[in-house]
Amino acid sequence: MSRVLFIGLGNMGLPMAKNLVKAGHHVFGFDLSELAMENFSKAGGFRSISLNTEIKDVDFVITMLPSGKLVSDVLLEKNALFKEAREGTTFIDSSTIDVDTAKRLAQTALERGHFMLDAPVSGGTGGAALGTLTFMVGGNIATLERARPLLEAMGKNLFHAGEAGTGQIAKVCNNMLLAIHMIGTSEALNLGKALGMDPKVLSEIMSKSSGSNWSLNTYNPYPGVMENVPASRDYAGGFTVDLMNKDLGLAAESALRSKTPIPLGHGAMDLYRVHAQMGSKHLDFSSIIQFLRPLD
Amino acid sequence: MSRVLFIGLGNMGLPMAKNLVKAGHHVFGFDLSELAMENFSKAGGFRSISLNTEIKDVDFVITMLPSGKLVSDVLLEKNALFKEAREGTTFIDSSTIDVDTAKRLAQTALERGHFMLDAPVSGGTGGAALGTLTFMVGGNIATLERARPLLEAMGKNLFHAGEAGTGQIAKVCNNMLLAIHMIGTSEALNLGKALGMDPKVLSEIMSKSSGSNWSLNTYNPYPGVMENVPASRDYAGGFTVDLMNKDLGLAAESALRSKTPIPLGHGAMDLYRVHAQMGSKHLDFSSIIQFLRPLD
Amino acid sequence: MSRVLFIGLGNMGLPMAKNLVKAGHHVFGFDLSELAMENFSKAGGFRSISLNTEIKDVDFVITMLPSGKLVSDVLLEKNALFKEAREGTTFIDSSTIDVDTAKRLAQTALERGHFMLDAPVSGGTGGAALGTLTFMVGGNIATLERARPLLEAMGKNLFHAGEAGTGQIAKVCNNMLLAIHMIGTSEALNLGKALGMDPKVLSEIMSKSSGSNWSLNTYNPYPGVMENVPASRDYAGGFTVDLMNKDLGLAAESALRSKTPIPLGHGAMDLYRVHAQMGSKHLDFSSIIQFLRPLD
Amino acid sequence: MSRVLFIGLGNMGLPMAKNLVKAGHHVFGFDLSELAMENFSKAGGFRSISLNTEIKDVDFVITMLPSGKLVSDVLLEKNALFKEAREGTTFIDSSTIDVDTAKRLAQTALERGHFMLDAPVSGGTGGAALGTLTFMVGGNIATLERARPLLEAMGKNLFHAGEAGTGQIAKVCNNMLLAIHMIGTSEALNLGKALGMDPKVLSEIMSKSSGSNWSLNTYNPYPGVMENVPASRDYAGGFTVDLMNKDLGLAAESALRSKTPIPLGHGAMDLYRVHAQMGSKHLDFSSIIQFLRPLD
Repeated sequence: MSRVLFIGLGNMGLPMAKNLVKAGHHVFGFDLSELAMENFSKAGGFRSISLNTEIKDVDFVITMLPSGKLVSDVLLEKNALFKEAREGTTFIDSSTIDVDTAKRLAQTALERGHFMLDAPVSGGTGGAALGTLTFMVGGNIATLERARPLLEAMGKNLFHAGEAGTGQIAKVCNNMLLAIHMIGTSEALNLGKALGMDPKVLSEIMSKSSGSNWSLNTYNPYPGVMENVPASRDYAGGFTVDLMNKDLGLAAESALRSKTPIPLGHGAMDLYRVHAQMGSKHLDFSSIIQFLRPLD
Repeated sequence: MSRVLFIGLGNMGLPMAKNLVKAGHHVFGFDLSELAMENFSKAGGFRSISLNTEIKDVDFVITMLPSGKLVSDVLLEKNALFKEAREGTTFIDSSTIDVDTAKRLAQTALERGHFMLDAPVSGGTGGAALGTLTFMVGGNIATLERARPLLEAMGKNLFHAGEAGTGQIAKVCNNMLLAIHMIGTSEALNLGKALGMDPKVLSEIMSKSSGSNWSLNTYNPYPGVMENVPASRDYAGGFTVDLMNKDLGLAAESALRSKTPIPLGHGAMDLYRVHAQMGSKHLDFSSIIQFLRPLD
Repeated sequence: MSRVLFIGLGNMGLPMAKNLVKAGHHVFGFDLSELAMENFSKAGGFRSISLNTEIKDVDFVITMLPSGKLVSDVLLEKNALFKEAREGTTFIDSSTIDVDTAKRLAQTALERGHFMLDAPVSGGTGGAALGTLTFMVGGNIATLERARPLLEAMGKNLFHAGEAGTGQIAKVCNNMLLAIHMIGTSEALNLGKALGMDPKVLSEIMSKSSGSNWSLNTYNPYPGVMENVPASRDYAGGFTVDLMNKDLGLAAESALRSKTPIPLGHGAMDLYRVHAQMGSKHLDFSSIIQFLRPLD
Repeated sequence: MSRVLFIGLGNMGLPMAKNLVKAGHHVFGFDLSELAMENFSKAGGFRSISLNTEIKDVDFVITMLPSGKLVSDVLLEKNALFKEAREGTTFIDSSTIDVDTAKRLAQTALERGHFMLDAPVSGGTGGAALGTLTFMVGGNIATLERARPLLEAMGKNLFHAGEAGTGQIAKVCNNMLLAIHMIGTSEALNLGKALGMDPKVLSEIMSKSSGSNWSLNTYNPYPGVMENVPASRDYAGGFTVDLMNKDLGLAAESALRSKTPIPLGHGAMDLYRVHAQMGSKHLDFSSIIQFLRPLD
């Protein structure tokens, strides 16, 4: 049983923190939303009263925040938890942030005598609730082993990606690839349909052929082909266009810095940008198939 | 045991025809190359001497030719086999051609009292040799059942895509999607590597996450990640850039006719065009990862 | 003074035919719309009663139709005017159609002893009304000289592009380039504005620098920068997204046949396709700047 | 006559500084290359011996450096010229750098009691030598007026873009647009040629039609169409692919920050990246037409 300070009880963070409680850990939860803290309390967690005090009593700090700027604020600048924490505290950042910030934070943690993992997740709010998230973890393997019980309380798959920052690298590369094959799958299904073919039959054939991919096989964007996916409920819920835009922005930033050509990655980013701007920000990202439908 | 006339003994056609012979069928083989016919004869096939005579003695005609124009020449125009054949002959076109020509040929076959299937394949020369091709079949299901013994002698997977032309639709959609996720996979692996991550570890993580796709999982384009794929033998063999260009051209043509937006499909096509033009026509299509490598 | 049969009295054709009348020519006008013919009659033209009779009495036939299929129907197939016309009749096709059809028609005209020019126009309905169109003319130069009085009654600029078909080539290349720099101009102005710069000042600077282009200088897409352009009247009128899509489709078809990479041309086409599909078909093509506006 | 400290005597900086000398100004020149300083001395300039001393004797400091990082090093960090300079010194940064750094530098200059202009140039090494550069100037108009004699010694066109940073905004937007219409022009000329048209005639027609743009009209990328452009000397000299890549990177960075979709801008960037990587870094940027030539 560990003592944990969990910062960021949003759509993802709250169910994750609850799963830690359920697994028997002692968890202080913090969020700017009073309502989120109340919900967490009802689930058996403790409301954080003073980060600067609680930080001294915990073994683990988990951050689940919407941007690298905020993570940096909490750990380094405003709240300066790196400074306030006892030496040897383990920090796990499960936010999806840029690689440079992740590496810098890990470096600073090390200099202060702490341990740090970047451990972004995939699996969405559904996976967060069910405790079936995938963690892509960058950092020292011994630290990962020490954090394993916590991570396994929240997720099902645990990948060690390499040294500090590689968790974020894996996440950003994976999600760029996801965006690309989601759009590719949408184009293929739209084209097949326009030429006169049943999207369901086409999906079955391609999923067993070289076109096979996660978007096609498990998250089919064509309405009616698959049950229990966003396409079958008007693209409500799921992984929003907004979140995909955030991840594609991180990919583009990384590509800029490393001078890597990502023609289809950029194509995907601009399509999702325009799609969002046309009023689809809060739809699931598989709704791109509608954006790309053939001209009448 | 069936009597078959097999037209087109090229890199794909020859091993396919040989597998028919091996399965005990009586096969006349035709090709403009005398050498191809000789090789076929050595394998137990019969050299075609006169298409116009042999056509009257066979139950099945299989075409495996490089373009819709050539298939049309053989069946409708120059050789006019549709006219020469006995009523009720079954034509199987395994060439990859445009959907319109496929539909037109099927329609004409029907009018002449014949049966016809469009049955393009995937699986490459390796699959042709081993008899493990995938057939995507468009046309009447009863005709498909009658042709099944022949198709199963040449392939492992048999998909019924729907009515006439849908075999070609499925093929063109599948291969466009394949090109897109091959390029997407290349971009993701190049980006990960440029950011400092091991492509092998990144491949493992993404293949178990939402980035998962056929190119990544079974045909990894990064040299050294996977054995026995073109990337590990300098991109020799496999499915050439030239052939991918042909299929992307068919996809673009279909998209033009049906007014379907295919932004990533077009992106893939232009990248493969330029890649070919820079001297990579005969390399495997996974070599696109080299074309897209980061700037020094 | 010439005797002319003018086929296609649409938004472009009607004002063009009227200008011929105004210049003193004897013009029969034909259109499927009775109203169009009535309007033409009021302007001093003659309603066509029987194409097959009138064709024998005229020196020139001008076609202004929405597709190559229709032009081909009128001249070669259904109406077969090539066959009905007296030997030595001059045919001028001012429609924008695909290069192959244009070449084929010219070839057939020649075989029948006629003269033919492909003479597509730019300048829009405004230019058609004012008689300030630009003609891009493919065909024999002697024929062009003979047709010059007619063309100059309808237009201001007359370019001889080369042999038969080159008028259409010039048109399709020009309009693809126009689409590209319209989108490029939109991206640059949107970006400048998002970064905090006045689009009017930015337009002035770029128009005098290496960014200079027709879209920026004379047809500025940013609302309020320029008077008397579609951007300053909610993108009403002008050259519609629909028409641009038609021309980009012709460019893509030509590129497909000639295996020419047109990455930005394809990008433009897919953007205009999606833009049209989102409800902007009838807006001016400079409205693409709205489609590409920054995310809030 | 002014006293000037000129920092950065590279391909652009050296001829610019020489023009200041020629106009009668007293100029100290600094560069890490001893050879550059020697060349400058031969032309009548003074070698900088100690930046920290000379800074106190001059009225103007001009920087012409390859990156924002270096400009920032010189003015703020390493050399800290902002701190060393007498209050009221005027700083002119003619480097092409990112907008954020430009704004930050201007802000700091102001706080220290200095004046600052961002004044990036276009016109290349040719324009630098001839004193015909274009300056896009951001900053206070009174400062611009005071700097005018210097700028007019080096350039012909002087644009006031607005407040601090807008010079860089104008530059980055302009050059992105330039890249786009250069590629668009290349695609149009390649397509026209592939379809059978003379690129020279096509260029003439489009330059007088709506396809008109700076790349086509004054810097034609097709070999042989125009004299005295890089295309007519194997793309030697001019504005290199490398420099265009730098500018496109700045555009992409700005677009990322401002969430502006730039689909063709990104397309241009990735094409120029791959073109550079294939061995064309040091060619003129109009060489992209070769990269995009049709498949044989």
